[in-house]
Amino acid sequence: MTIRVVVWGENVHEQENETVRKIYPEGMHTTIAKGLGEDPMIEASTATLQEAEHGLSVERLAKTDVLIWWGHKAHGQVSDEIVERVANRVWEGMGLIVLHSGHFSKIFKRLMGTPCSLKWREAGEKERVWVINRNHQIAQGLSDYFEIEQTEMYGEPFTVPEPMETVFVTWYEGGEVFRSGLTYQRGGGKIFYFSPGHETYPIYYNTDVKQVLKNAVKWANNPAPAWAGITNAPNTPADKAPNGPLTIKGETLHKAGEAGFR
Amino acid sequence: MTIRVVVWGENVHEQENETVRKIYPEGMHTTIAKGLGEDPMIEASTATLQEAEHGLSVERLAKTDVLIWWGHKAHGQVSDEIVERVANRVWEGMGLIVLHSGHFSKIFKRLMGTPCSLKWREAGEKERVWVINRNHQIAQGLSDYFEIEQTEMYGEPFTVPEPMETVFVTWYEGGEVFRSGLTYQRGGGKIFYFSPGHETYPIYYNTDVKQVLKNAVKWANNPAPAWAGITNAPNTPADKAPNGPLTIKGETLHKAGEAGFR
Amino acid sequence: MTIRVVVWGENVHEQENETVRKIYPEGMHTTIAKGLGEDPMIEASTATLQEAEHGLSVERLAKTDVLIWWGHKAHGQVSDEIVERVANRVWEGMGLIVLHSGHFSKIFKRLMGTPCSLKWREAGEKERVWVINRNHQIAQGLSDYFEIEQTEMYGEPFTVPEPMETVFVTWYEGGEVFRSGLTYQRGGGKIFYFSPGHETYPIYYNTDVKQVLKNAVKWANNPAPAWAGITNAPNTPADKAPNGPLTIKGETLHKAGEAGFR
Amino acid sequence: MTIRVVVWGENVHEQENETVRKIYPEGMHTTIAKGLGEDPMIEASTATLQEAEHGLSVERLAKTDVLIWWGHKAHGQVSDEIVERVANRVWEGMGLIVLHSGHFSKIFKRLMGTPCSLKWREAGEKERVWVINRNHQIAQGLSDYFEIEQTEMYGEPFTVPEPMETVFVTWYEGGEVFRSGLTYQRGGGKIFYFSPGHETYPIYYNTDVKQVLKNAVKWANNPAPAWAGITNAPNTPADKAPNGPLTIKGETLHKAGEAGFR
Repeated sequence: MTIRVVVWGENVHEQENETVRKIYPEGMHTTIAKGLGEDPMIEASTATLQEAEHGLSVERLAKTDVLIWWGHKAHGQVSDEIVERVANRVWEGMGLIVLHSGHFSKIFKRLMGTPCSLKWREAGEKERVWVINRNHQIAQGLSDYFEIEQTEMYGEPFTVPEPMETVFVTWYEGGEVFRSGLTYQRGGGKIFYFSPGHETYPIYYNTDVKQVLKNAVKWANNPAPAWAGITNAPNTPADKAPNGPLTIKGETLHKAGEAGFR
Repeated sequence: MTIRVVVWGENVHEQENETVRKIYPEGMHTTIAKGLGEDPMIEASTATLQEAEHGLSVERLAKTDVLIWWGHKAHGQVSDEIVERVANRVWEGMGLIVLHSGHFSKIFKRLMGTPCSLKWREAGEKERVWVINRNHQIAQGLSDYFEIEQTEMYGEPFTVPEPMETVFVTWYEGGEVFRSGLTYQRGGGKIFYFSPGHETYPIYYNTDVKQVLKNAVKWANNPAPAWAGITNAPNTPADKAPNGPLTIKGETLHKAGEAGFR
Repeated sequence: MTIRVVVWGENVHEQENETVRKIYPEGMHTTIAKGLGEDPMIEASTATLQEAEHGLSVERLAKTDVLIWWGHKAHGQVSDEIVERVANRVWEGMGLIVLHSGHFSKIFKRLMGTPCSLKWREAGEKERVWVINRNHQIAQGLSDYFEIEQTEMYGEPFTVPEPMETVFVTWYEGGEVFRSGLTYQRGGGKIFYFSPGHETYPIYYNTDVKQVLKNAVKWANNPAPAWAGITNAPNTPADKAPNGPLTIKGETLHKAGEAGFR
Repeated sequence: MTIRVVVWGENVHEQENETVRKIYPEGMHTTIAKGLGEDPMIEASTATLQEAEHGLSVERLAKTDVLIWWGHKAHGQVSDEIVERVANRVWEGMGLIVLHSGHFSKIFKRLMGTPCSLKWREAGEKERVWVINRNHQIAQGLSDYFEIEQTEMYGEPFTVPEPMETVFVTWYEGGEVFRSGLTYQRGGGKIFYFSPGHETYPIYYNTDVKQVLKNAVKWANNPAPAWAGITNAPNTPADKAPNGPLTIKGETLHKAGEAGFR
């Protein structure tokens, strides 16, 4: 069964900036989606900020297995309601891959609970991405490392929670390092952050980067049914306790059948 | 040097509910603070929802080493601005101890990035809290387990991120289990979630519970200077790269000295 | 492609103890393998302590995707050489599922680096296994919990490293709790510890237990090529540095081409 | 109360190699111990391979709060019995700091359960150690990074378990990266691995390196009583169950009072 991926693109610099438009005439989201589409297991479509509901309607998200997020200049224009909707889908089990400047997207900060800040520099310097666990699904088909000739530097400290797995660590020409591939589990959903991808360089055409994204989609995909109601706190009343009816002792705050506070 | 603790209490049920008022005539926050004050290393004061800025002014938080959070019925009345302020102080290094129904507080959900949902039942059943790592600072002075005669059941799944350390796991009379003591690191701050504490039982007078809170305060306290600016993403320009001035290659998005996007 | 599983059984109690023989007349390993074989994706064979090289020759392990380990009385009779061989295969990428009393097996202790001790009691009491993340691959097809009517109690503290994921936590009739399903990544290999399985009860015929094992096999299976040489520390000489030939500065310990110390 | 530290040194290269002897005429262990001794809270002594029981008698270890390990050429000469003794003390709560080539020491491999392999190069290149969490106790007093002018390169993949915390990541002149400061909890003991320290360079005289070691000693120190018997698996018989006497159901393997298998 194919994995249904939506590549979300902010789609602003491609419209406003000549350099970016030249590299990504169809938009970064389209280029990323085309790269993924090379894999017969993946069916990739796109969504953008400018569409109604940013292209992320309830119905569409319900049919999305993995969402890829690229944003930069317009993080603030993303609707809080949509961010909450996406967070809910991740908790239900949808995979999420956050790219590059998406470190400061509302959705990534929402799911990490930390500032997600970092150091940066635009100097077109070289980046060498080292593979930490070559047997990780996300690292399949890579060598010990791969290089990106021109990149934006993203440097430590990267203020995210300690990850489930550190998949990649990057070396920069200018002297910094970065944990460039990190995995997280949040609720039923898997999250992968991957730092390469500055829009003034043709990074999403890079064969290794495309390989990482294909791998990451397969890793993040969770075929389990959506975890409906994961945000609810259900009451298990005394007469339905696993050990059979309990005699209520002491005082209670809620009457039988009352909902909990939120 | 003493550790400056603020015990934040919602202070609603103590006013509205006869049962709770009888148990905690001065408010739960005051009882918790008095328990902490038994330790000469700890200097505990209180703050409540009803005070201006909920008692959590910028100045006060700046002088707070560890914040303890108890809320239940009025999570929604806590100002988003104060929540963000507290989150920032945690990232800067302030310790945070979240108690019981605080699992659904805005601040805990904000820092976890997950639903923080769980199962619950008010039946006054027994809880047995098992110690996983008896050498952990939070478990000092405890036996293999301690018991709370009457408690509210909080059952798994508890939808939080996998913790840094699982310190306690609880057994319930009715048949559920709960990871009742969990640690997290978020930015420069340490977070401890501890589940016992329902307001209709005198749990914060329990000797073992008081011991856990004293221990947790010491564990969460971080004497390092506040991590100022942790939410910023500073630019390291090409001429200030650690390896010395870099020649800029390729195109850039920002002009020299321009701030990054957020 | 089918997943090639070897179920390793100590095969001692089945021979010596009438109770165990009645429940598992063909040996526990055979029962476990038959349960796995219900899944068309899994091809399960068995190996026992009594066979040459305990049935775990280099050739056979090289063709094993996931190894399941059940041992109890005869941990000490397992050859250290075979233990090291299995550890190497796990590091290379083979999955390992350790069952019940295998907590004290040489291979599990070898891979955890901790005592792996726990509390225990044989009273035939009930165990209720709670699912922490219902969307985890290992939990597919289960309800909120499943029960084992008669079990050996395994209680905390379970002295293992904090896991990658806590998949299950168990409640016992007698009052203890146990982290009964834990995942680890060690080198290229995934490890799952699952505590149910005492030999005097028919636990491996239990539908939920069989489901967990099928799921765990799929989770632990890593189709990546074996990480050959993972135990080596390769030299990258100065003239082969990623950044091109380096001029050697200062003194060195090794002459060019010399192997490192071990 | 002072923290009692033993700095264990292999003390081989200092005797055999002219370069090393010139840098560390009293032995590396002595230099490290003197650096620690600058802190009034630390009382540091030394032990070496050549002493009886390698200087690590049961009595001495019992009075050691934190052990620091430096070994390289003679890992194989360390007695397995002493390794097991040290591992037991770590599980009981003794802190352990493993330095540089100690990545391949018996004790580190024993506690990690992984190959602990890495890439290496002796070229005297520069290392820049980046601080990931500046509020971590181990990073107190450091800047964003510190540099070591001449170092041995240790490169990824470093085949250790995912750490509790990634404290430092290193950049190398030659193009590699390394997770150079990692923390672990094993049983009751805290472990810190720190990679700088090649013996042909005066690294343990470096102010920042000395600061890290002082900090790490304080972090690893656990004033809790030793976790005696952590390797035992105690039986809790049916009549001593926390919930009161249990009626034994079904069959048992052990007679009442019998010890478990190991």
